[in-house]
Amino acid sequence: MRAALALAARGLGNTWPNPSVGCVIVRDGRVVGRGHTRPGGRPHAETEALRAAGEAARGATAYVTLEPCCHWGRTPPCTDALIAAGVSRVVVALRDPDPRVDGVGLQRLRDAGIEVETGLLETEARAVSAGFVKRLARGLPMVTLKLATTLDGRIATRTGESQWITGPEARRLAHALRGCHDAVMAGSGTLLADDPELTCRLPGYAPVPTVRVIADARLRTPLGARLFSAAAPAWIATAPGHDPAALAALEARGAEFLDVPPAPDGGLEPEALLRALATRGITRLMVEGGAMLAASLLRAGLVDRLALFTAPALMGGDGLSGLASLGVDGLAGMPRLRVTGQRPAGDCWLVEGDFLPAPAPPG
Amino acid sequence: MRAALALAARGLGNTWPNPSVGCVIVRDGRVVGRGHTRPGGRPHAETEALRAAGEAARGATAYVTLEPCCHWGRTPPCTDALIAAGVSRVVVALRDPDPRVDGVGLQRLRDAGIEVETGLLETEARAVSAGFVKRLARGLPMVTLKLATTLDGRIATRTGESQWITGPEARRLAHALRGCHDAVMAGSGTLLADDPELTCRLPGYAPVPTVRVIADARLRTPLGARLFSAAAPAWIATAPGHDPAALAALEARGAEFLDVPPAPDGGLEPEALLRALATRGITRLMVEGGAMLAASLLRAGLVDRLALFTAPALMGGDGLSGLASLGVDGLAGMPRLRVTGQRPAGDCWLVEGDFLPAPAPPG
Repeated sequence: MRAALALAARGLGNTWPNPSVGCVIVRDGRVVGRGHTRPGGRPHAETEALRAAGEAARGATAYVTLEPCCHWGRTPPCTDALIAAGVSRVVVALRDPDPRVDGVGLQRLRDAGIEVETGLLETEARAVSAGFVKRLARGLPMVTLKLATTLDGRIATRTGESQWITGPEARRLAHALRGCHDAVMAGSGTLLADDPELTCRLPGYAPVPTVRVIADARLRTPLGARLFSAAAPAWIATAPGHDPAALAALEARGAEFLDVPPAPDGGLEPEALLRALATRGITRLMVEGGAMLAASLLRAGLVDRLALFTAPALMGGDGLSGLASLGVDGLAGMPRLRVTGQRPAGDCWLVEGDFLPAPAPPG
Repeated sequence: MRAALALAARGLGNTWPNPSVGCVIVRDGRVVGRGHTRPGGRPHAETEALRAAGEAARGATAYVTLEPCCHWGRTPPCTDALIAAGVSRVVVALRDPDPRVDGVGLQRLRDAGIEVETGLLETEARAVSAGFVKRLARGLPMVTLKLATTLDGRIATRTGESQWITGPEARRLAHALRGCHDAVMAGSGTLLADDPELTCRLPGYAPVPTVRVIADARLRTPLGARLFSAAAPAWIATAPGHDPAALAALEARGAEFLDVPPAPDGGLEPEALLRALATRGITRLMVEGGAMLAASLLRAGLVDRLALFTAPALMGGDGLSGLASLGVDGLAGMPRLRVTGQRPAGDCWLVEGDFLPAPAPPG
């Protein structure tokens, strides 16, 4: 199952709105087939693994990270393929919360006389499938906040110099993070300041191009933004009521629009913004800043994970903060994390963590 | 020599104004004596090790982290003790920059027919002896800046709540850091906000009590400060010209005063402040904040090391920064570090580093 989970992780960012699933088929103690969801979401992992196994699948055990589908989508049901291949046992890490599946796939396998087990490494499978599960359960994407700061939390000098706080190794790792998310989002302030392309520019990544999203309530995105020079979708989330000519001009550059209600702080209403992205199929969203957008999502409790790159330097209190105001009065109100990993990236460090649920309000 | 260096590290914070030295005596491949500078600076390491070795020192090799002294201080010269004990070989890591020694100790050993080698693990010995060497060479103490912040560099909420950002394991480690410095300094703002005792309250530490220093240009230290309740020296560095009655009242509480010229920012002139401490014998100074004092020392390039405790939480841009303005305009002007260690402390992390020399100004 660990091998199947590792296969599933390979597809992250490439399979939305489908989950990235891994499948390993074992017969007589030997691996006879491996597969993971292919770019675009099909073929499914089971199909790939069964194809590799061929006749060896008969009587074999299939390890699958997510319950096999039992409905006709763009592909035939995987349950039927497993049954037809003569697999005798299926081990599933996580039951599929999709209401079209949700135990029915397991039942269909059992009805066909296949031995079925569930729950092996379920926690790990839930982590790999977090975006898919959250979108189904809550209509929201899993959100990773990426920050690249000095040791004292600054992203630019008081004069605005920001390139580059972190070194080339950290920036490569940040590109790899983009590659395993369905979409990368930045605020319009960041777009105006840095003119980023927001693409994953690493060899071997992104057969499905990462969607770039600009949160741009006031429609400040310039027509000449480098965003439009890359061959990947460019979505602009904006408040309704802008000049149709301005919208048309951006559309001509390749932009697609998401209508999101404005928030009192001048930005977009954060939950509506994420719902609009989930409606379009985004399951894994990486937020790259700026300070206002990141803070609005944190204040609303909508961020699941942090990926913090720190450079071994100090900037001081007059540097630009990576986060705008969170309105935290007491220490108990701080967003807190369970750190899941620390690793070096050149002379910088990447700290990764999962945000803990907010504590219940006192009283 | 590694064993001798480890012994030397044990005495840090306890031997000022003397260096903390380690000595290991080896005969026929066996350690026959160990010693390090005792609290208060005497007996010296060599005396301790020779006493332990007794007759076994004859014909043995002595490994010493710092060149043995050759002058009469409060103790007789260690060179004479090594000669009298019949040691046949002395290996020294670092030549003593004290002008009263500075190679003369080595020469005296050679004149007595002892084989002498120098330079073994000199870099490591220089690190252990950094405070002693810097005070001799530049008339300044080695300065460690300790910060305890959130991942985004904040030390308190916007309402001032700061206790405790970091957890009990991190605070214990911070106490241990106090214990291996000669003095701990805080600004008067921190004293007024937190009323800290600034002592090392760990069993087994501080046979020589750590000096507490308050940088207090405006003489705001209250007579009831908890600082005065501990049995350790309390020094107040202040600008001249305060009301003699106020000074006398603080003196009656146990305060000693250091006169330091004021700086234009309302604090004390940072280099003069450190010189005053070095003049009193302080070789290793730990600065615990606040944000103004830390920034004034960083701006002046007077900080050697950083000890940054980070809690796995975010505070946001409206939290209180651990550092006041550093006036950094370009990224090249940032104080940069070579990270020397990262270790967990409960759910927090301690990052330790040495500040790199400031780059030469352009042009």
